[in-house]
Amino acid sequence: MFSFAEIKEAEARIRPYINHTPLIPLENLDSVLGCRVCVKLENLQVTGAFKMRGAMNKILSLPEEQLKRGVVCASSGNHGKAVAYSAKMLGIPATVVIPETAPAIKVEAIRALGAEVVQCEVSERFRIAAEIRDRKGAALIPPYDDELIMAGQGTAGLEIAEQEPDLDAVIVPVSGGGLIGGVSEAIRNLAPGMKVYGAEPALLPRYSRSLEAGQRVQVPSSKTIADALVSSMPGEVCFPVVQKNVDQVFDVDEEFVLKGMKLLLTEGKILAEPSSCIGIGAVLQGLVPVEKEMSVCFLISGGSVGLSQLAQLETV
Amino acid sequence: MFSFAEIKEAEARIRPYINHTPLIPLENLDSVLGCRVCVKLENLQVTGAFKMRGAMNKILSLPEEQLKRGVVCASSGNHGKAVAYSAKMLGIPATVVIPETAPAIKVEAIRALGAEVVQCEVSERFRIAAEIRDRKGAALIPPYDDELIMAGQGTAGLEIAEQEPDLDAVIVPVSGGGLIGGVSEAIRNLAPGMKVYGAEPALLPRYSRSLEAGQRVQVPSSKTIADALVSSMPGEVCFPVVQKNVDQVFDVDEEFVLKGMKLLLTEGKILAEPSSCIGIGAVLQGLVPVEKEMSVCFLISGGSVGLSQLAQLETV
Repeated sequence: MFSFAEIKEAEARIRPYINHTPLIPLENLDSVLGCRVCVKLENLQVTGAFKMRGAMNKILSLPEEQLKRGVVCASSGNHGKAVAYSAKMLGIPATVVIPETAPAIKVEAIRALGAEVVQCEVSERFRIAAEIRDRKGAALIPPYDDELIMAGQGTAGLEIAEQEPDLDAVIVPVSGGGLIGGVSEAIRNLAPGMKVYGAEPALLPRYSRSLEAGQRVQVPSSKTIADALVSSMPGEVCFPVVQKNVDQVFDVDEEFVLKGMKLLLTEGKILAEPSSCIGIGAVLQGLVPVEKEMSVCFLISGGSVGLSQLAQLETV
Repeated sequence: MFSFAEIKEAEARIRPYINHTPLIPLENLDSVLGCRVCVKLENLQVTGAFKMRGAMNKILSLPEEQLKRGVVCASSGNHGKAVAYSAKMLGIPATVVIPETAPAIKVEAIRALGAEVVQCEVSERFRIAAEIRDRKGAALIPPYDDELIMAGQGTAGLEIAEQEPDLDAVIVPVSGGGLIGGVSEAIRNLAPGMKVYGAEPALLPRYSRSLEAGQRVQVPSSKTIADALVSSMPGEVCFPVVQKNVDQVFDVDEEFVLKGMKLLLTEGKILAEPSSCIGIGAVLQGLVPVEKEMSVCFLISGGSVGLSQLAQLETV
């Protein structure tokens, strides 16, 4: 069973390779969000997203022999970038399988890191990654459904609890559950009174449905502006951890994801990708039980966004 | 003579009204700038710029009788916003004289704060503000050339020296000299080994010329993308303080101001107006003697920038 000890091990293992990211107050957002606002800036993580934590932890745990044959992953972008960069840091080969629907900025970033990129239809990505694993003998680095990945992501929660132990709540973007699984485990152990909330696209309510049903439920796949949060089912390894630790997962409408992104950029002066702003969207949509004196930390999970994507915020 | 004691008094006076802004590392910028990069985020200050510190200090120092008759200022934007917001907080009337060339976003922000706005040609702004002062009996709040203003701005330097006493250098955007005057005085007193550099538009080299001449020199007025740094001559009160404290002032080309803004936004994930990014531009242009192991803090002075202005960064 996944435990806090794995997160502490991950922390020691990945420390030389990752940024200890800032957690700062954004007081200018307090009145509009109705609480004391903090942000944990994983958009300032190496490669621009928290994914580096899990990928590096997983890769550093591979046997020496395996490392030489390299790594492969299937990813909508940030995980692929993290695997590519980790491989580059360690001097091993990497292949990244990317859906054709991913933003060009993410694909280019991965190529620039020296990884081989294979593009395919979104539904084919895991099959093709497995094929490459078999053909090359490369290690498959899963995006979330793995204890070592979850432990790596959990180091962000460990930092939050150390940086601001008196927070009332943390709100975490949710897809497969690797980030919120790890973060919630760290916070349950270090700051048991702190609420841990998740925020997922209302178009892909895999966690709210599954938590309600008491078991993993698959929802129809769907396109969302939160393009890093596209899994249609909770991870098998992640789900019981989330079920045990997380207070509630909110389903956020597309419109509020963009409103959150706009607020964070125009008033908070922080650039983050839409997926990262879904927690702020959840509060703007009135879903989260916040109060004026509550300190709430929004985990800003990544910053992969092109300048050309910002024009759409004008009309939100 | 201006002294550190005035900055400490200002700090106590304005503390309830301003944000103690974060100073954070931006490790993802280290390799491109060639030093250890920190930013002091005055774009997260109340009203989105450091100007609040000086305006509030000046206004809180006015006699009760004067306060009732209100305040007036002439400003290209951020100072006007700060005066308007300070007046609103204190429940007194404010009139703000703004050049017609100022970005619409700044004008609207000032109106939204309840101030009366008078627009005029840029060369007329001080004359019209003085006329309003005489007609209404309002107190004129100068943008920089005043010890109380400079002392207020200096509280940003006081915070920097307390937050990161081991910095090797601080780089401050320069116009009339209120900010760098106050900041340099605080740093000379609290961290005498820290270098204090200024960065001004190469199109308006009023400080580099004046420091070279040993006296205040007026340069021809000029339009610059750094639209908050438009004064054509150092302030009379500010100049001797800068002369005494500041190690060097660099003249930065327009192109590098925008390159600095783009780097801060795309890699640093921080949105700031062009004027605020001129220090980063100075390093990108190769003007600043930085080294890999040096910790350098860039004072990010404000964040008044509209989303529509970001498109121009695509081509930089």
